[in-house]
Amino acid sequence: MFAPLQNDTFLRACLRQATSHTPVWLMRQAGRYLPEYKATRAKAGSFMGLATNTDYATEVTLQPLERFALDAAILFSDILTVPDAMGLGLSFQLGEGPKFATPVRDEAAVNRLEVPDMAKLRYVFDAVTSIRKALGGRVPLIGFSGSPWTLACYMVEGAGSSDYRLVKTMLYQRPDLMHRMLAINADAVALYLNTQIEAGAQAVMIFDSWGGVLADAAFRTFSLAYTARVLAQLKREHGGVKIPRLVFTKGGGQWLEAMKQLDCEVLGLDWTVNLAKARALVGENGPNAKALQGNLDPNVLFAGPAQIEAEVAAVLGSFGAPHTDPTQAGPTQIFNLGHGISQFTPPESVEVLVNAVHALSRSARQQPG
Amino acid sequence: MFAPLQNDTFLRACLRQATSHTPVWLMRQAGRYLPEYKATRAKAGSFMGLATNTDYATEVTLQPLERFALDAAILFSDILTVPDAMGLGLSFQLGEGPKFATPVRDEAAVNRLEVPDMAKLRYVFDAVTSIRKALGGRVPLIGFSGSPWTLACYMVEGAGSSDYRLVKTMLYQRPDLMHRMLAINADAVALYLNTQIEAGAQAVMIFDSWGGVLADAAFRTFSLAYTARVLAQLKREHGGVKIPRLVFTKGGGQWLEAMKQLDCEVLGLDWTVNLAKARALVGENGPNAKALQGNLDPNVLFAGPAQIEAEVAAVLGSFGAPHTDPTQAGPTQIFNLGHGISQFTPPESVEVLVNAVHALSRSARQQPG
Repeated sequence: MFAPLQNDTFLRACLRQATSHTPVWLMRQAGRYLPEYKATRAKAGSFMGLATNTDYATEVTLQPLERFALDAAILFSDILTVPDAMGLGLSFQLGEGPKFATPVRDEAAVNRLEVPDMAKLRYVFDAVTSIRKALGGRVPLIGFSGSPWTLACYMVEGAGSSDYRLVKTMLYQRPDLMHRMLAINADAVALYLNTQIEAGAQAVMIFDSWGGVLADAAFRTFSLAYTARVLAQLKREHGGVKIPRLVFTKGGGQWLEAMKQLDCEVLGLDWTVNLAKARALVGENGPNAKALQGNLDPNVLFAGPAQIEAEVAAVLGSFGAPHTDPTQAGPTQIFNLGHGISQFTPPESVEVLVNAVHALSRSARQQPG
Repeated sequence: MFAPLQNDTFLRACLRQATSHTPVWLMRQAGRYLPEYKATRAKAGSFMGLATNTDYATEVTLQPLERFALDAAILFSDILTVPDAMGLGLSFQLGEGPKFATPVRDEAAVNRLEVPDMAKLRYVFDAVTSIRKALGGRVPLIGFSGSPWTLACYMVEGAGSSDYRLVKTMLYQRPDLMHRMLAINADAVALYLNTQIEAGAQAVMIFDSWGGVLADAAFRTFSLAYTARVLAQLKREHGGVKIPRLVFTKGGGQWLEAMKQLDCEVLGLDWTVNLAKARALVGENGPNAKALQGNLDPNVLFAGPAQIEAEVAAVLGSFGAPHTDPTQAGPTQIFNLGHGISQFTPPESVEVLVNAVHALSRSARQQPG
């Protein structure tokens, strides 16, 4: 059904296998910093118009690959499609973040929640299959969802928030309701990601974008435990091929020891994390060792080419040399930003970044020692 | 000139001396969640009208002490008074954050910056003296400033920011300009805090509110190094009495090992930090050991009294028993929120919190072992 994969560098690095260069892709690599994305978006009329149209979603997913030598594609969609399918009414105003028409703020609203019929998310699975076909095996396709906690943040707040007051009020005042919502979210996310895998996703990523706003103990109880509940239900392979699972908690750098226990292959790290320390804790060999993904500050892309190259070298150097032994697993890095790329980024900066990752990581592997 | 201090619990805990209970105060304890504050603010007409009027500033500083058994007062002022005195034109719109009329965005603007004449900040020092007198020795008075990096964020962005794109663009593109600005900020903050100490402040706190947005390496270079430059210039005592110095980096939990090297007495921690781990790293005995301040999530105050008490107990329990040996220094905690109190907080919740900290920490000290 799908063409054979030509560039498996990303998937190999996810599985901690040696690669000839450090693979690179960027969170939100298909997006507003590209003029061709803006043109397609204008044709589609709205963000959801874009995301729900198979042809448009395929077109914008492939746009960054036409420009840059990226090692993976990521489905063009949103982290909030699942609560939308639960009936909360997702919309995006131009220049603003997502909004839900019907936020979940009381016991009755929590009691109405259930795992949505995946038929309502068919547009996502159709897009996955269409993109996978259009890729023709150039690079693997990553599927994704928001984490149960991150979905809950938006479901209760109804939109982005600066203080998460409403969702945390529910968490502290009615932990029973919060647990009920998170359990439903986790089961829905697991089903959603498994259906993406069946539709053609070759890796899946859970974006715990708001895990970092929780207090230390609350993170373990209300975010990590439900990410683990998703992971426990995910397919490990499809058609005999392993499906790596990536987890990214923005602001989660202090909790890496706990996150190391997750049953997944890759941890994403934001730019506040020291990669050498993270590698020693999580990325080196031993039980539960994981590949690490990250972690350049997206704002580096506003500097000149020489500074971008220097910062890329610093991130690669901070992780240190990945292993090169083809006979066994070992420490690997997947280069990425520490968060989504800014809409104001000059596209030329992305080219400098991608080429620098490839050139520097190739030449480092060729050096003796 | 000033009445003798009746409650020195906060100062003793700062110096890692044994106390009969865990002292507590709250960041932004004088503020919008108190109806009496709103009344004074309405009389003053504007935030700056309030902050620059000695009588009003004194009145609002003392308001929370009338209601709650807090162990310290903190000067009512803003973290951005220093750049205002540099001529950037600070203002506050109701319901919004601070704004500068003249942000610092290019080389010419950086070159115009200099350490301001402290006469322009006389309203602050007058308020310090007035508040200290009005306190009559009930509890000690904390002075404060923003950190050099946090000031730079606002000076370049001109206001709050969600991505710190402008200030980080300068940082990555023109690190020379950023270093020049930070050096001036550090020297200005040091002079400002020393003048507060001369005016009557009994402890001083540096708010590195935006240190946590920096990448790992950048934090050390552009935030920590300049906080250290401030600390190196601060008075250690005044009139023969030690003046504790507190540093709070919001989002700085990953960098505690580096922050331990700071020449200060107390580190403030936000709610993401595990206090037991922080105590083991920084708070226990040994060279550079420090008192720890924090770290309840302010959103706990939206729950009911029983949950607030349980969360207070959890924070006290996470730090563990402070030392009780009157003959030497040892681990101590100063109870606080992990960030400023929300304007929507019910005042009754603060009473529950303060009383719980006192009662629970007193009874824990009376238990054997």
